[in-house]
Amino acid sequence: MAAVTYEHIKTCKQSGARLGRVHTPHGIIETPAFMPVGTQATVKTMSPEELKQMDAHIILSNTYHLFLRPGHELIREAGGLHKFMNWDRPILTDSGGFQVFSLSNMRKISEDGVEFRSHLNGDKLFLSPEKATEVQNALGSDIMMAFDECPPPDADYEYVKNSLERTTRWAERCLKAHARPHDQALFAIVQGGMFADLRKESVRQLTSMDFPGYAIGGLSVGEPKPVMYEMLDVTVPLLPSDKPRYLMGVGSPDALVEGAIRGIDMFDCVLPTRIARNGTCMTSEGRLVVRNAKYARDFGPLDPKCSCYTCRNYSRAYIRHLIKADEVFGIRLTTYHNLHFLLELMRQVRQAIMEDRLLDFRDQFFAEYGLFDNERGF
Amino acid sequence: MAAVTYEHIKTCKQSGARLGRVHTPHGIIETPAFMPVGTQATVKTMSPEELKQMDAHIILSNTYHLFLRPGHELIREAGGLHKFMNWDRPILTDSGGFQVFSLSNMRKISEDGVEFRSHLNGDKLFLSPEKATEVQNALGSDIMMAFDECPPPDADYEYVKNSLERTTRWAERCLKAHARPHDQALFAIVQGGMFADLRKESVRQLTSMDFPGYAIGGLSVGEPKPVMYEMLDVTVPLLPSDKPRYLMGVGSPDALVEGAIRGIDMFDCVLPTRIARNGTCMTSEGRLVVRNAKYARDFGPLDPKCSCYTCRNYSRAYIRHLIKADEVFGIRLTTYHNLHFLLELMRQVRQAIMEDRLLDFRDQFFAEYGLFDNERGF
Repeated sequence: MAAVTYEHIKTCKQSGARLGRVHTPHGIIETPAFMPVGTQATVKTMSPEELKQMDAHIILSNTYHLFLRPGHELIREAGGLHKFMNWDRPILTDSGGFQVFSLSNMRKISEDGVEFRSHLNGDKLFLSPEKATEVQNALGSDIMMAFDECPPPDADYEYVKNSLERTTRWAERCLKAHARPHDQALFAIVQGGMFADLRKESVRQLTSMDFPGYAIGGLSVGEPKPVMYEMLDVTVPLLPSDKPRYLMGVGSPDALVEGAIRGIDMFDCVLPTRIARNGTCMTSEGRLVVRNAKYARDFGPLDPKCSCYTCRNYSRAYIRHLIKADEVFGIRLTTYHNLHFLLELMRQVRQAIMEDRLLDFRDQFFAEYGLFDNERGF
Repeated sequence: MAAVTYEHIKTCKQSGARLGRVHTPHGIIETPAFMPVGTQATVKTMSPEELKQMDAHIILSNTYHLFLRPGHELIREAGGLHKFMNWDRPILTDSGGFQVFSLSNMRKISEDGVEFRSHLNGDKLFLSPEKATEVQNALGSDIMMAFDECPPPDADYEYVKNSLERTTRWAERCLKAHARPHDQALFAIVQGGMFADLRKESVRQLTSMDFPGYAIGGLSVGEPKPVMYEMLDVTVPLLPSDKPRYLMGVGSPDALVEGAIRGIDMFDCVLPTRIARNGTCMTSEGRLVVRNAKYARDFGPLDPKCSCYTCRNYSRAYIRHLIKADEVFGIRLTTYHNLHFLLELMRQVRQAIMEDRLLDFRDQFFAEYGLFDNERGF
C-alpha cells in the first residue's frame, strides 16, 4: 500500500471543488488544506503546540535550507525531521528545486543536476534528482517532492518546453532513487510556464508514471491571477482524480478559494508568516497594517470577526506597540492570527463544499474581504 | 488597609532566611521570589500563558520605557498595564530612576528631577518624583517604586551621601504624589553605594516614613559579590520585618540563594532573558553556551535534570540549529528554560527554608552547579 492515499468524500455540486482526506503515516489532512511553511524546521516564531491549537494538519519544510543547515545527515541522526522539531503530524518537504533557482548564486544547470553556491557561505554545492531524494529520505517527510527545474518567469516557449521535459526525466530519476516508498510518498511537479499546451504535455508525461500525488509548480511567480487560474483550468482536469493535487506557493485568500474551486487539495505559502513579521494582517475586512499610526489607540482586536488567541486577548494598540518596539511577541501574535485566518478560511471552504455552496461562499467572502487588488489584497 | 502586605510564614532555623507571602490586588507572591522582567510590557519572546505555565507569580515592567513608548496615557486609556498586556497577576514597575541614569543621554539632575534625552529619538524629557509616580499610577502596577538617584559606581563618599539624602527627599515627594495608595503600593529604595554607614543612614531616613515595602538599589553594578553581600549584611537587619524586601537587579543563581539567606524576599534581573537571546543557558551543571559547535550533534536536553517545556521536548542540537539560523523559536526555547530554571530554584529555596536547611541546600547546589566565577557562572 502507498504511503499516502487520497480519500474522496464529495464534490461540490455548485463549484466542482472536492472535499477529501489525505492519509499519511503521521495522520490525516482534511482537504482542501493550507500548509504553514516551516522553512528551517520551524514555522517562524510558532511552537508546534500553537500550530496544533490553530489546527494545522500538516506543515511544509525546505529541503534546500535543511540541506545547507544543519544538514540532512544530522537530522537523520536526530531520528528524522518530525522528532528533531517535535512535530508529530504530517510534513511535506519540497525538493529544493525552487530555492536553488530563487536563492542561490552562480547556478550551473546540466542534465545531471544543478551546481550552485550556498546563499549562506558561498560553498559550492550540488543538487540532483538523486541527491534531493536522498536528502528527503533522510528527513523522513511524509510527502517528498521530485526535484524540478523552475524556468524563469520570462522564459520563452522553447526554453520552457525543454525544461519541462528535463523535469520529467528528473522525476523519473527521483522515483528510481526513492529509498522509502512504503513510508514516504513522492509527488511529481507539473511545469510548463504560462503555455497551456506545455502544461498539458507536462501532465501527460508525468501521469504516465505512477506518482501518488501531483503538484503544480511555476505559478504565482508574478503573472496576473487570471493567467494562473487559466493554467489551473487546463491542468487540473487532466490530473488523476484519485490522487492529491497540490498548488505550490499560493497563499493569498482569494487564490486559495479560486484554487479550491478548480479542484486543488493542498496549498502552501510563506505569505501569512512573512507579512506578519512587518505587522501586516489578513482580516475579514481585508489587509490591515497594524504598524500604522491610526491604530495607536485602537483597543479593539485585529479582526472583530476572528476568534483566534490573538484576537481574543490583545488589542491593535498593544500589537502595534510591540512591533514598533521590535518585540518578538508582537510578531508571534500577528503570525498566529494570519495562520489562523487561512486555516479558518479553509475550514469554511470545506464546509461550503460539504453544503454545495462554494461559489456562494466565494462571492460573499470576496464582498466582505474587499477587492483583491494591491490596495487591500495581497 | 494597605494595597500590599507581607505575611511571614517562617524563618529558616539554619540560615535566617524567611518564607512568606506578599499579598497584592492581583494575587499572592510566594517569597523568596524571582520576578521575570518585561521591560516594554512583554517578557521578551514569552506569552503570559507561558509565564503562568512556569508559575511566575509576578513580573516587572519599566516605567522609563513605557513612558517613552507607547506612553503612559495610552496605557491608562487601554485600562492599565495588566489589561494592555493580558497579564492578570501582580506587576511591579520600577521608577525609571535607574534607566534615566543608565540609558539616556545628556542628563541634567536638579533637586526638582532629571532632564534627559530619550534614547529612542533624542526628545528632551523630564522625570521627577511626581512625574514617575503619575506615570506608575497610570500604569496601575501593584507595586510602584519611588524615583531615586542611582549614583555612578565610582562615586565618592560625599557624592553618595548627598545623593542618598536627595533620594530620601524624593521618596517623600513620591509618597505625597501617590494618587492610588489603596490599590497600589509604593516601595522606597535604599541607596548608599558601597559605604556601610551610608547604607545604614539611608535605611534610617527611609524607614522613618511608612512605606509598605523596601528595596535595595545600587547593588550588582559591577562590585564583587562579597561586597554586595556585605552591604546586604549591614542593610537588611535594619529593615522592618513586617514589610517585603526587594533586592533590585540581581538574578545570578548564586546571588539569589545568598540574597535569600540574608533575608531578601524579592529579586528581578534581565540576566536569564538577555543571555538566552545569544544562546546561553543556566543548567544544573553550570553555564551552557548552546551555540557552541560541540553541541551540533548533541541530541540530549539543555539540562538533563530539568523538567521544563524546552527540556522535555527539544535537543541541544535543535536549539543550536535554530539559534544559528536566527530563528525566533530558538530564543523562545532558551528564554523559557532560563526563566524556569530561576523560578524552580526559588521553589527549592522556599522548600529548603520550610525544612530549615537552606545552608545545606546552598552548599549542595553550589557544588553541583559549579563555581560562580567567570568561567561557569554569570
